[in-house]
Amino acid sequence: MIKVVVLGSGNVASHLIQALTASKKSTVVQVFNRSNTVFGSIPVTDDYQQLLPADLYLIAVADDAIAEVSRSLPFEGRLIAHTSGSVSLLDTAKSNRRGVFYPLQTFSKSRAIDFSTVPLCLEAEHQADYMLLQQVAESISEQVYQVDSEQRRALHLSAVFVNNFVNHLYHIGEQICKKNQLPFDILRPLIAETAAKITEMPPLEAQTGPAKRRDNSTLLKHREQLTSHPLYLQLYDLLTEAIQKSK
Amino acid sequence: MIKVVVLGSGNVASHLIQALTASKKSTVVQVFNRSNTVFGSIPVTDDYQQLLPADLYLIAVADDAIAEVSRSLPFEGRLIAHTSGSVSLLDTAKSNRRGVFYPLQTFSKSRAIDFSTVPLCLEAEHQADYMLLQQVAESISEQVYQVDSEQRRALHLSAVFVNNFVNHLYHIGEQICKKNQLPFDILRPLIAETAAKITEMPPLEAQTGPAKRRDNSTLLKHREQLTSHPLYLQLYDLLTEAIQKSK
Repeated sequence: MIKVVVLGSGNVASHLIQALTASKKSTVVQVFNRSNTVFGSIPVTDDYQQLLPADLYLIAVADDAIAEVSRSLPFEGRLIAHTSGSVSLLDTAKSNRRGVFYPLQTFSKSRAIDFSTVPLCLEAEHQADYMLLQQVAESISEQVYQVDSEQRRALHLSAVFVNNFVNHLYHIGEQICKKNQLPFDILRPLIAETAAKITEMPPLEAQTGPAKRRDNSTLLKHREQLTSHPLYLQLYDLLTEAIQKSK
Repeated sequence: MIKVVVLGSGNVASHLIQALTASKKSTVVQVFNRSNTVFGSIPVTDDYQQLLPADLYLIAVADDAIAEVSRSLPFEGRLIAHTSGSVSLLDTAKSNRRGVFYPLQTFSKSRAIDFSTVPLCLEAEHQADYMLLQQVAESISEQVYQVDSEQRRALHLSAVFVNNFVNHLYHIGEQICKKNQLPFDILRPLIAETAAKITEMPPLEAQTGPAKRRDNSTLLKHREQLTSHPLYLQLYDLLTEAIQKSK
């Protein structure tokens, strides 16, 4: 069994601990966090000096705390990996062997995630360390990718578009429904099918609608409906332009 | 059995014909289209004079052809309904009893749709006609809504945001991946989870990311990555602003 210590208590830490605990090749020997949050029967500490020996220390804390946590570790030469999409491998303290173990998914406390489908993006300074990260990753997920720091930064940016920004467009759809006494439920099948469609074809091929068709009379009608909401109108115009320029 | 004639040969017409044919309460007695496209063993005509008697004529043609098709019908006083999200009930010829039968979904030739989950948005000038539209709708879908023309215009606009615009954000995610030698597959689980999440919580509650957290150092990094693509940068800024202003 590969011994892992997880540092953190947030959504990513929780989901990782759960997946690693269920795995047959890896085991979480200890959890470190300042809130002394308990995960089942796994030993918890809030004292760096009490950290147990392990093959891997996963730093699953907020982006801006990663460097500090890595500097607080009271040992040297061990394998540490953070789980962030936007922090460079080089931002962690170089007293230890450094790696990245980035799960590309949105986690929330209230929703269970099938970890076997979560893409894990790995990076390590040393080949042997990469092999170990890979073993741990493959013990919990079927989607393991070698991704360098620059690629990971690009992925993180992509994720903002397909997750954060997409979610905000859902919110705008909901607002327009609310204003017109329509339940948001009415849009859910369309939202689900829009996401499902691109599992079978590239997004460019799946593109439909008045912008794509250059149906100016419909575009005009939509713009008129948005006059009372200048920000939505700006978004409408810019996204329409982006669709018409894409190829 | 309620007798339906479907006018059209596109995606909406095809999916409607398929669903109505499978239904136990409605039947497609004839299909009209100029290309003489055949649907199974259903009689087809391209001659308005040959239209058979029916309880309902569904005009499932392109938006800008609806008015003309409705004016070409050689009879009066029968129930006709178009299937468009953006055309008013009043745009069809008033020589017949008018209605709307709008399926709020994105249809493509290559993908099967479970019609029972497609929201059908109905409107009619006369209550008795509404009842008939409702019977037909309920024979093929579990989601039937009474939606007036103004509400339907709002729905159509919402659909542009949650379908057309969302799909374009998928495209941008794919472009960023491509540019960095990453497979688009790596984003698919995130896309699926983003859509699935809002079946359990309102989009505003599901919102995460650097814009929402006002994580300015990450926002700055992302903006730097987009300097070579001014249109994506504009979108990034505007969507970030929209997220930060939403409540």
